[in-house]
Amino acid sequence: MLYGKVVRTKYPYAKIKNVDISKAKKYPGVEAVMTAKDIPNNTFGVIIQNQRVLAEDEAIYIGDGIVMLAAESKEAAEEAAKLVEIEYEELKGIHDPLESRKPDAQLVMEGTDSNQVVHHPLRKGDVESGFAEADLILEREYSTQYIEHAYLEPEAVTVVPNERQTLVSVYGSVQNPYATRDAVARVLETDLSQVRIIQDNMGGSFGGKDENISSMAARAAVMALATDRPVQMVNSREESIIESYKRHPYNLKYKIGAKEDGRLTAMEIEAVADSGAYACQTPFVTWRSVVQATGPYEVPNVKTDTYGFYTHNPYTGAMRGYGSPPTCFAQESLMDELAAELGMKPDELREKNMYRQNSHTASGQKLDNHTVSLQEVLDKAKKSINFDEKYEKYSKEQSGEKKRGIGLAISYRGVSLGAEAIDTTGGIVAVQKDGSIILYCGLAENGQGLRTVFSQVVGEELGVNLDRITYMEADTSVAPESGSTVASRSTFMGGNALKKAARNVKDTMIEFAKEEYGVEGNIIFKDNALYTEKGKKVEDFAKVASDAFHSGVFLSSYGWYKAPKISWDEETGQGRPYFTYVYGCQIAEVEVDTGTGQVKVLNMAAAHDVGKAINPANVRGQIYGGVVMAVGQALMEDLGFSDGFINHTNFDEYLIPTVKDIPDIDAIIVENPDPAGPYGAKSIGEPTVELGGAAINNAIAVATGDRHYDLPLNLEKVLIGRDLSREG
Amino acid sequence: MLYGKVVRTKYPYAKIKNVDISKAKKYPGVEAVMTAKDIPNNTFGVIIQNQRVLAEDEAIYIGDGIVMLAAESKEAAEEAAKLVEIEYEELKGIHDPLESRKPDAQLVMEGTDSNQVVHHPLRKGDVESGFAEADLILEREYSTQYIEHAYLEPEAVTVVPNERQTLVSVYGSVQNPYATRDAVARVLETDLSQVRIIQDNMGGSFGGKDENISSMAARAAVMALATDRPVQMVNSREESIIESYKRHPYNLKYKIGAKEDGRLTAMEIEAVADSGAYACQTPFVTWRSVVQATGPYEVPNVKTDTYGFYTHNPYTGAMRGYGSPPTCFAQESLMDELAAELGMKPDELREKNMYRQNSHTASGQKLDNHTVSLQEVLDKAKKSINFDEKYEKYSKEQSGEKKRGIGLAISYRGVSLGAEAIDTTGGIVAVQKDGSIILYCGLAENGQGLRTVFSQVVGEELGVNLDRITYMEADTSVAPESGSTVASRSTFMGGNALKKAARNVKDTMIEFAKEEYGVEGNIIFKDNALYTEKGKKVEDFAKVASDAFHSGVFLSSYGWYKAPKISWDEETGQGRPYFTYVYGCQIAEVEVDTGTGQVKVLNMAAAHDVGKAINPANVRGQIYGGVVMAVGQALMEDLGFSDGFINHTNFDEYLIPTVKDIPDIDAIIVENPDPAGPYGAKSIGEPTVELGGAAINNAIAVATGDRHYDLPLNLEKVLIGRDLSREG
Repeated sequence: MLYGKVVRTKYPYAKIKNVDISKAKKYPGVEAVMTAKDIPNNTFGVIIQNQRVLAEDEAIYIGDGIVMLAAESKEAAEEAAKLVEIEYEELKGIHDPLESRKPDAQLVMEGTDSNQVVHHPLRKGDVESGFAEADLILEREYSTQYIEHAYLEPEAVTVVPNERQTLVSVYGSVQNPYATRDAVARVLETDLSQVRIIQDNMGGSFGGKDENISSMAARAAVMALATDRPVQMVNSREESIIESYKRHPYNLKYKIGAKEDGRLTAMEIEAVADSGAYACQTPFVTWRSVVQATGPYEVPNVKTDTYGFYTHNPYTGAMRGYGSPPTCFAQESLMDELAAELGMKPDELREKNMYRQNSHTASGQKLDNHTVSLQEVLDKAKKSINFDEKYEKYSKEQSGEKKRGIGLAISYRGVSLGAEAIDTTGGIVAVQKDGSIILYCGLAENGQGLRTVFSQVVGEELGVNLDRITYMEADTSVAPESGSTVASRSTFMGGNALKKAARNVKDTMIEFAKEEYGVEGNIIFKDNALYTEKGKKVEDFAKVASDAFHSGVFLSSYGWYKAPKISWDEETGQGRPYFTYVYGCQIAEVEVDTGTGQVKVLNMAAAHDVGKAINPANVRGQIYGGVVMAVGQALMEDLGFSDGFINHTNFDEYLIPTVKDIPDIDAIIVENPDPAGPYGAKSIGEPTVELGGAAINNAIAVATGDRHYDLPLNLEKVLIGRDLSREG
Repeated sequence: MLYGKVVRTKYPYAKIKNVDISKAKKYPGVEAVMTAKDIPNNTFGVIIQNQRVLAEDEAIYIGDGIVMLAAESKEAAEEAAKLVEIEYEELKGIHDPLESRKPDAQLVMEGTDSNQVVHHPLRKGDVESGFAEADLILEREYSTQYIEHAYLEPEAVTVVPNERQTLVSVYGSVQNPYATRDAVARVLETDLSQVRIIQDNMGGSFGGKDENISSMAARAAVMALATDRPVQMVNSREESIIESYKRHPYNLKYKIGAKEDGRLTAMEIEAVADSGAYACQTPFVTWRSVVQATGPYEVPNVKTDTYGFYTHNPYTGAMRGYGSPPTCFAQESLMDELAAELGMKPDELREKNMYRQNSHTASGQKLDNHTVSLQEVLDKAKKSINFDEKYEKYSKEQSGEKKRGIGLAISYRGVSLGAEAIDTTGGIVAVQKDGSIILYCGLAENGQGLRTVFSQVVGEELGVNLDRITYMEADTSVAPESGSTVASRSTFMGGNALKKAARNVKDTMIEFAKEEYGVEGNIIFKDNALYTEKGKKVEDFAKVASDAFHSGVFLSSYGWYKAPKISWDEETGQGRPYFTYVYGCQIAEVEVDTGTGQVKVLNMAAAHDVGKAINPANVRGQIYGGVVMAVGQALMEDLGFSDGFINHTNFDEYLIPTVKDIPDIDAIIVENPDPAGPYGAKSIGEPTVELGGAAINNAIAVATGDRHYDLPLNLEKVLIGRDLSREG
């Protein structure tokens, strides 16, 4: 096996005048040194195919790779990399999307006529008349920062060339094996069937191991084929932070109008996301923002415009929450400020406007096919944390340097991909002749617990204990292509697909059992056996499987699930963007040290309606993790970004919550089964991360009286009560 | 990775009095030294579970392993093996099945009350009256020897413990992955789903890499789990020849009666096969003999008894041809002798008696569902080699030391497993969104060309070129369990299964194309595209695949094929043992050096009705290989076996045909499509090997006037005109 290494640009934006690899090539143990010219097809991308495997004429962000090499040892690769000589002409780039959007701005991406990656409009009613009706109008501007995924394990792949029947096998830390397969096959200019992606156990992903793993896999694949040797590539933490895409920073302008009694009359929103150097998933990430920008509130008149623009900054893509954490932060912070201006309690204002059964969303979708449970999640979270009492207490003048506050946020969130993509998932249930069961699904276990949940679904359907069920690793040459493992869609989509597959097998077994054992009436599958409807045991499940096999009966099945119909009008933002929604409420209790600006989150009540918790421990785990991520985003995470450079390239400077920063969390599971979900289940992964920012911000406002608009709420901002940088 | 090694018994039959592994354990680099006591379940077997992973109290054949060990290097493993001290008490074993069958013989296998492994009777009509009607009765005795499979690559496996989701993954030279999975799971006492067998490219098998690979895999698996390290085991050629099972030696007593005009009136046959130390596949191998024992001839009165007995000899199992080469040798040699006694030409006698359309076999099966083409294969082979002229010429007195002869043999052979086993096969056709296709089948590519044939079948069905089709390696955790890759069943069974899978996908594509593109009428799949029945191109196949995927349409399918019904009465040997048959004729032209006894096979005409040759080059390859194997069996192959010891343990002494021994072979493909076969295809692998022995023997008789009854026809026997050993 060889060890790969990438030489990256020194500057965020520079002309590459000359690349000299001659010395590197001669370094002992070096087997390949390659540039963009050596790559069959140098571009790939999930939505727009403009991401480059290696930069050729110019580098357009600080993570751009220019040369890749492979050597007999990591040390040799490191040393040889130092011998690559690149001559640059540093150029002045654009590092602010608000600059990049200007008509005369220089273009970041070749072949475009504007830096705009995407614009999603949404129009409902008439905002002019809506604002005219309002008794109170607030206009506020918010910003959110880059967020690093900060997965435990940096990116890693091993590519084996010509392994068995395929051109390359890619083993690695791959969140979305099919997306990586698309990229590698495209770069190698070969068939999808010739690229096999097998997922290894992952040390976290959170949306992060997609495009950057694809480029790493493509690089390793090109070198593996060139050398006919397996090539392993592993990023150091610094390489990972410099190269990998981030959560989009957003600039958000909100204008909201309300009657004196709190009823909202109009909202106008402009959201600008920084796409960085590549399009990556910006079109879809920003679309998720559109649907959630107005929050879970009935507003008769809405105008929103959501944009993504190229800059010479690190590119941005999928991260847990996708486009919602920035808009939720803005919207739910604004609601608290509006409530205060109206002299209402925060929950009172929300209750006045929030979606209820049969409400219509900003997109005009009637919420009538599932339970709209905002009141329930709000009530349960409030009760858990004793909101009313604490809010009243903390709203009064507090003595001493340490002041406490409490704040809440609510949200609705569409389940799965939404109307911009095909939403299908397939799985395999294969009952072996000893009754043990093998499962495959096109969705991947990224640490979220999908393996457990899917095994439970099949176990439930077939009445078989989990110890007889083996959920196999994601393997693109086996499982059906199922869309990405994103959008909190796995339980819903994969659960439904595997339930169908299990049901098919079950039907075959029932038919066989009736004939073979002469059973009349219904057959019940439970406790590893089949029973008559009167409760008499027919046979052990394993015995039936064996008898069926020995009678030539086939007990494997695909299950294929296509999500319910949805729709979207790109011009108006009207339609039915998601087939169902989840609802959540998080309430943060904080203590602010007004002498240092330090914010300690003491408690968090997090109530989420997941439809049905197939595995409650897993659901709680998702809530804990989401809250912790939100705490990081709210209070500390900061790349030390300036003019295209990332200054915080490891966790000594890029701070994430440690165990001492984590509040007591009450994870409250609310269950209103969804008619379309497997056993009623919906989502939990991402809604957990979108509420903490606003809840904490609102709590700080209660504690200190200062309203903040820019994340993170670090010591300096909290200490002086505002963001000085905004004031120039 | 560790390297495994087995310490085997010194004696064919011995009490193991003491095993001292203490010194071996201390050898540097040794990680595991294990005996039978360390194995969770020490027995396995395909039919009867009495084969031992390691011998414990006694060794019962010269290949029995007693101790296994694993070390950091092959060298350390070799050295440590020498330090294992085993104390034996050598015992006198039974090495002749004719001794072993005696009622008072000592028992080879614990827990049995007789050495008889199996007895298959067949009764048709009344042989007593049949012989009474006969004008001529011949009684002859034949014997055939052990045959080594002589695959290019000795047995090899690598077992990886706890790889991804399974307890063990076994990579290796595995002919029948599911059988090996059964064995390993049984030995480890775990679920089938927890044992994954992935076949590596194989250097030949010919039926040989089954039970001995299973024991090797089980040993490596036990050591891999004990050490939590991958363990590789590779047999040397000597280890392979000493340990592996062989083709059964047979002792065959034939009695045949005929009228003066050549019409057969009765046959009585006793066939005794040496099973060696274990049952292995003896029950099934001998059953194949039963059905073919009388040859392809209508005989009104038949009594056959076929036996297998345990001895302390090397165990015997599946080898290309299974139970037919010994019986074909005897039967077809006898037919020539009978013809000579009756003053008829060999082909004339055969034509008088051989099966024709609607004939009834010895088992009472009416041959009415396929074309009985014995006359055609006989005519074509005769014509090719100019039989009549040469036979007439060589039958006359020849001058000089070198004399030529010509001899023929014909056979019918049942396709696939026959009535003793469930006969089902499954496959997967998975069309990817770029139109490339992934195939799986539960049958394995053992070098026979199944990958090509299956790809052709699917390519034909979907109108897609082979370069877009990837046939994946056998993988027990993916493909449906399909029975073993044996019995020349792959093309028929797997072809049908994959054709069904392809047909399912095709139906889905047709439905989609009609709706999506508004096509009316039938749709034709050819040249990587879809066409209307009028020949107008609808779309490229790849485009349809892509459009379908992006519409959420699923284009993968299992295909499951269950063979047509068959039947068998164990008491009478009557029934419908196979659902169809193939027919073949081989004619050998030889030159015998009467001064040295050397036989040179000059030409071989081999005509085989395969139903339909899906890949003619592959079919010819099978014929060439089968003929060469038959030449080896007929003339030279000899283990140097005595009293349980094998003296010829490598190819310097165990002679197999070299390129100089191979005759010119005219491979004649006859095609009478079978209604049930995929595109009419039936079998070719094994029928090719069952005819050469008799054809060569008959040719020698023509050349020298000497009739032989015992294989191999080595220099000594041919020189003196008979087998001296038989005369004591």
